[in-house]
Amino acid sequence: MTDADRFLRACRREPVDVTPIWLMRQAGRYMAEYRALRARHSLLDVIRTPELACEITLQPINAFNLDAAILFADILPILIGMGLNLEFVEGEGPVITNPISSPADVDALIVPPIEENLPFTLEAIRLVRRELDGKIPLIGFSGAPFTLASYAIEGGGSKNHIKVKRFMHSQPDAWDRLMDKLAQTVGDYLVAQVKAGAQVLQVFDTWAGVLSPCDYREKALPYVQRVIERAKSTGVPVIYFGADLNGLLPLVRETGADVIGVDWRIEIDHAWDQLGPNVAVQGNLDPTLLFAPWDQLQRNVDNVLARTTGRPGHIFNLGHGVLPETPVDHIRRLVDYVHERSDNSGGS
Amino acid sequence: MTDADRFLRACRREPVDVTPIWLMRQAGRYMAEYRALRARHSLLDVIRTPELACEITLQPINAFNLDAAILFADILPILIGMGLNLEFVEGEGPVITNPISSPADVDALIVPPIEENLPFTLEAIRLVRRELDGKIPLIGFSGAPFTLASYAIEGGGSKNHIKVKRFMHSQPDAWDRLMDKLAQTVGDYLVAQVKAGAQVLQVFDTWAGVLSPCDYREKALPYVQRVIERAKSTGVPVIYFGADLNGLLPLVRETGADVIGVDWRIEIDHAWDQLGPNVAVQGNLDPTLLFAPWDQLQRNVDNVLARTTGRPGHIFNLGHGVLPETPVDHIRRLVDYVHERSDNSGGS
Repeated sequence: MTDADRFLRACRREPVDVTPIWLMRQAGRYMAEYRALRARHSLLDVIRTPELACEITLQPINAFNLDAAILFADILPILIGMGLNLEFVEGEGPVITNPISSPADVDALIVPPIEENLPFTLEAIRLVRRELDGKIPLIGFSGAPFTLASYAIEGGGSKNHIKVKRFMHSQPDAWDRLMDKLAQTVGDYLVAQVKAGAQVLQVFDTWAGVLSPCDYREKALPYVQRVIERAKSTGVPVIYFGADLNGLLPLVRETGADVIGVDWRIEIDHAWDQLGPNVAVQGNLDPTLLFAPWDQLQRNVDNVLARTTGRPGHIFNLGHGVLPETPVDHIRRLVDYVHERSDNSGGS
Repeated sequence: MTDADRFLRACRREPVDVTPIWLMRQAGRYMAEYRALRARHSLLDVIRTPELACEITLQPINAFNLDAAILFADILPILIGMGLNLEFVEGEGPVITNPISSPADVDALIVPPIEENLPFTLEAIRLVRRELDGKIPLIGFSGAPFTLASYAIEGGGSKNHIKVKRFMHSQPDAWDRLMDKLAQTVGDYLVAQVKAGAQVLQVFDTWAGVLSPCDYREKALPYVQRVIERAKSTGVPVIYFGADLNGLLPLVRETGADVIGVDWRIEIDHAWDQLGPNVAVQGNLDPTLLFAPWDQLQRNVDNVLARTTGRPGHIFNLGHGVLPETPVDHIRRLVDYVHERSDNSGGS
């Protein structure tokens, strides 16, 4: 087994030499190299320039012994080609200036050919694959339909998600048409990413945790299933992640994903018991533990590893993305420590 | 059995005629009467004026057939007497202008006699009890130690709770001293509320759901247990509520509370199974369903009632507080519908 196989083998619940690790938002503001590049280019510029997206994707790969790269991109630009005006306001996050508020708005949405909508991301994947040269696999990703619908209707982030839920409950037919268009577009996008070279796909359902089980089951899950089924038809492993899903795990099990990402608000074995033995599990260190003294951090890593010992298919990750102020040195130590601590080879 | 007994009987898991219902934040901005009063008085003024706090407490009681009143107050003013400067900035929420950032700040905190710290709240309880005249019981409440510590260290609300977690992990002794002072003060407060007339107590652990199981168990739970033990020593039932605790339910079970409040992100019977049969359960309708058409709302109420049928000790509530923009008419219909739908008397 080479290092290159470790992550893909874990996705398939095959034996590995040591536990693979990658980190959500492993490319980002906590790295000086990233901040230097972003000082000269806006977020949308970086995403739309394959050479820059490639450079940022590789920054953490060059700095740490990570077992997978994840394409530097964002879940929201896919909405631009569908007809929504997206802006990233520094310090405020994404804003959609023409949010969806009526069934007519849904009907006006376009399902664009993905090669016209996001050609730069597909090109960035090709560049990254060339640079990685088989060293470690590349993860492609997309937002899930509900999460994209939430941004599209709320017009940005939201605290209580009243608008998207009101639309969902009061316009059930338009909701289905909206989710249908999003599922089609997301499915096309994921398939195109694999064609361009992505070796694993992650579906981010960032906001699904605001839903009740009843709403998740009826209004979001069928579209997740459809997207994941299409993604899996390419033959690559598919990861599904959302925060705050710990009350929904019996339903998350039904997404069909090969790997489920679990947040830090639950013991990972308790989550895995609810997900069943037929999935791999990714997670689940609290990202804020990277701000703690090393001995505290270490103790919590040991806890995650102890609770996954003997269960094939564990991929070490944080329970959510790396926070912008995270100390770089702790990222480095974390990655090396996970490899060292999980090494059961007994070799020298 | 009179209507007055229904809520207290459910807290003790005794048979009831119909399912009792009250709503977190049942007094608040969604009511025109509340907005009219608040147009003339600031939040802190209302809380510090027993006659006004009493008037607001009774507004929803006069408007709807609720089975309990909850004192109109806030969890944060308790921090003022401990030495923290609290301001409510309209539209922004609470701000603490001298947050805790060092062990010395912890040592400077006062554990004040509660009758000097919050005399207005105790007087408001006496007024409300007189006005209610035994019609329905009155709930008193406090924030839990971790949630208060989070506000005290973050200086207000927070997205990622980095400061409070960093303090907790890097200053373990000062953390214990802080939590000790908070547990003492909160315990005094709850006991004093019962002496003033509160018939049930609710402990709000609003932010506990940001903690990993390990941190919750070691850094928050022991202080919750201590507070709840003191509260229960008065003989009244104690409710424990926090949002996003669905991954922590096996630990929440150990709080010692008589009733556990459950948010809407889990099926209520799935939560109850994890909490065990020896507690009553309060919840758990998604507050945003009050914005949905009535038939959608009704269907979700039916779901909660069906999943709690045959389990003594269900108290109907939302999974979180009533949202400010909620339509009043749906609150009225919800309260009456829960009573009507759960009426198993078979009478006319």
